[in-house]
Parts: sequence; C-alpha cells; structure tokens
Amino acid sequence: MEQKRKLSIICFSGDFDRALAAFTLATGSAACNWEVTMFFTFWGLNILKKKPGRKFIGRSLKARMFNFLMGGSAKMPMSRLNFGGMSPKLMTGMMKRNNVATFTELREAAVALDINLIACEMAMNILEVTRDDLIDEVKEVIGVATFLRYSEDAQVLFI
Amino acid sequence: MEQKRKLSIICFSGDFDRALAAFTLATGSAACNWEVTMFFTFWGLNILKKKPGRKFIGRSLKARMFNFLMGGSAKMPMSRLNFGGMSPKLMTGMMKRNNVATFTELREAAVALDINLIACEMAMNILEVTRDDLIDEVKEVIGVATFLRYSEDAQVLFI
Amino acid sequence: MEQKRKLSIICFSGDFDRALAAFTLATGSAACNWEVTMFFTFWGLNILKKKPGRKFIGRSLKARMFNFLMGGSAKMPMSRLNFGGMSPKLMTGMMKRNNVATFTELREAAVALDINLIACEMAMNILEVTRDDLIDEVKEVIGVATFLRYSEDAQVLFI
Repeated sequence: MEQKRKLSIICFSGDFDRALAAFTLATGSAACNWEVTMFFTFWGLNILKKKPGRKFIGRSLKARMFNFLMGGSAKMPMSRLNFGGMSPKLMTGMMKRNNVATFTELREAAVALDINLIACEMAMNILEVTRDDLIDEVKEVIGVATFLRYSEDAQVLFI
Repeated sequence: MEQKRKLSIICFSGDFDRALAAFTLATGSAACNWEVTMFFTFWGLNILKKKPGRKFIGRSLKARMFNFLMGGSAKMPMSRLNFGGMSPKLMTGMMKRNNVATFTELREAAVALDINLIACEMAMNILEVTRDDLIDEVKEVIGVATFLRYSEDAQVLFI
Repeated sequence: MEQKRKLSIICFSGDFDRALAAFTLATGSAACNWEVTMFFTFWGLNILKKKPGRKFIGRSLKARMFNFLMGGSAKMPMSRLNFGGMSPKLMTGMMKRNNVATFTELREAAVALDINLIACEMAMNILEVTRDDLIDEVKEVIGVATFLRYSEDAQVLFI
C-alpha cells in the first residue's frame, strides 16, 4: 500500500495574503487526500484567535499591547499595499467576484477537511496567549520537537 | 539508475531581493542537473508580466488599480530599505560591479536551463491577469492540485 | 541503522522575529539529534556579522552604505510593529519574563549543538562582506551548488 503524502506548513506570518496562500495550499493538499498539518507560531497565532478583532490578551502590559496591536484574523494586513487595512477587504471582494474561496471559507474548509490545526507553545508563552484565547478547532498546543516528529516524511513549508 | 533530484519553488513574493534568491536557487539547481519548477502566484505573478513597467490589467476597477500599483518585473521593490525604488537599481549596479548575474540575466538563464515556469491559475483569476499579459516563456497555467502532483518527491520552498 | 534526519534552513531574512524562528527550529532539531545546516544569505548575513551594531563594511560607497544601514545582529528589526527598533528589545524582555531563550542564547546554543553555520559566497560578494567581517563560528563560505549538495535528503526551509 502506498504511503499517504504529507504536508506540514509552519504558519509564521500573520499577513492576509500569506495566510491565504497557506490555507489554499493546505486545503488543496487535503482535498488530494494528503495528511496536512498547520503549525501556527508568532504572528500566525493571530489567525487562530477567537476574537477576530483587536483584544487585550496577556498578563503583562507589553503582551497586552502587542496582542491588541496585532489583532485577530479580521485585522490581518496585506504584506504590501495595505492602504491602512482597506486592501484585505478589496481583495476579498475581488475573490468573491471571481468565485474564489475567501479566507473565512478557506479556514472553514480546513476544519471540514480535518487538517491538523496546531498552535506553537513557545510563541503562546512569549505572547501570553492561552488556549482559551484560540478557536475551539485548534487540536493541540505543542512544542517544536513534537511538531518535528509530526512532520517526519512530510514536505515542509515556512510561510 | 539514480532518480533525478527535483526542486519546486513557490514564488509568492514579488520583492526584488526574494525574486533574486528564487532565481539564484533555481538556476543553481538546474545547472546541477535537477528538475526545477517555479510556480508563480500572487505578487510573484508580477515577475512574469510581459510589460516590465506599470500597466492597467484586468476587467474590474479594483484589479486594474492593483495591477497598476504592483507593476511588472522592473518595478519590484526591495523588501526593506527600498528608498522609493532606488535600491533595486543600486543593487543591480553592485551585482554588475562584482560580476554576479543580474535579475534579467537570471531569468534568461532560467529559460535557457529549461526551468519549468508556471503560473497560478487561481491568483490570475483573482487579479484578473490573463495568459496574454504574461511572457511567452511561461509553459503552463495550472492550479494547486496540479502543482502538488508536479512536486512529488521534490524539495519545495516557499519564497 | 537508521539514517540521521537532516534539516537545512536558508536564512534569507534579517528580521528579528524570523531569525528567532530560524534558530528555534534549528536548535530544536539539533537537540533531537538531527543534522542541521543554516545557510545565511543576503539580509541573513547581518545575523553573522562580528559587530552587532552598525558598521561601514565593503569597498564601494554603495556597499558601505547598505551594510551600515542594515547593521548587525543587534540592529535586526521586527518584520512588523517595529516601533523604530524598540520592539526587539520589548520582545526580548517578554522572552526573559516567560523563561524562553533569547536570540543571543539561541545563537550560542546553535554553536554548542554543532549546527553547521555557513555563509553564502555570492551574497558576500554582492554586499562586499568578507570572512573577517563575520563571527569566527561560521564554518564555511560556500556557493549555492555546494549548499544543495549538503542538503541532499534534508527537509529545506526558506526563512
């Protein structure tokens, strides 16, 4: 029997355009019956925050400030030509117009396709984000060593 | 007989410095007799546009505006220290001075080395870029699923 | 006997947050007994500069200006929310507060774990950086072809 192909994506970036690329690749692979893991770290944690807007998260003042400024999945900026946050909205309009799945639809598809959404323990510690701050669909909170074990024989992308 | 080594590069970025890195890795691998595929998506499509400068492309007003602002291969910005577009020119001067292949030479080398230049169908739909807007050397316009099939047993980079 | 797993990281970025991610993944893998290579190119060379601050390096005026503006490992900016260079300091404080290894500690750990730190010859030529400008721990200065040979059977990340 042939072994299942595996894809692991390290979702480091919290940019709207890069998140789109990550979820497009992930759902495309999962639809082809690959085993897909997405490991969210640093800015990527914003994609998984329960509250899509800005929220003070963390115990220390610094963490609360950073988390507020970074915001959640509805506040992701474009990596370029962001125009003060207007571009992701324009881009979503262009995606709808051309019948391409939007970011929200892609994240729902990722869950439906049983993609393994996991959060980076160390980044959560630094940014003082707790499991409760993240959406319920997150399957695990793990460290780098565990992620590496999950990614054995996988193609790995850093986005 | 040993199998040919394969490299697939997802060229997501349209930054001058990252495009340089992508083509340097691609041509270096191809020169070592690897089978190389470059998959251009989102900002990376700008690298393949026929017109190197700025041009209105697309049917809708939004797409036309985005494509104009993004421009073609001669308008790629540096990811940092861009100085209003002056840095790519300075950098090209430094490359010539030190006998390193410039971006234009690298793209020509990629074609000469028979690297598989392919464009992402979905990104073209979103940005309303057509096959005619891209250089003739682009071999195919494909979706993610096809790209994944091409990349079986390849080392894959996201740039 | 099982073959040792290998990880190669192309450290292209000189951003503080991305450098953190690169060294975290590298030291995590090395601690799990993988064979790890970090290949520093372009902005990533700043991480290896002997002088952590700003310094004029190079023969030509352009190179000297670029190297001064890019600075060394103590001048790495955050990729977002940099606040004029204050954020890496805030972030380091948050890491200490939460008992996470800081960047300096991670780079020392990389050396202690015998990670193969290598510098890109071509990027050094373009930016007119010499071996003497880099820390002693750099094991080699090599070209892309040699790096590719080192990375056979490795999982490769572009950061």
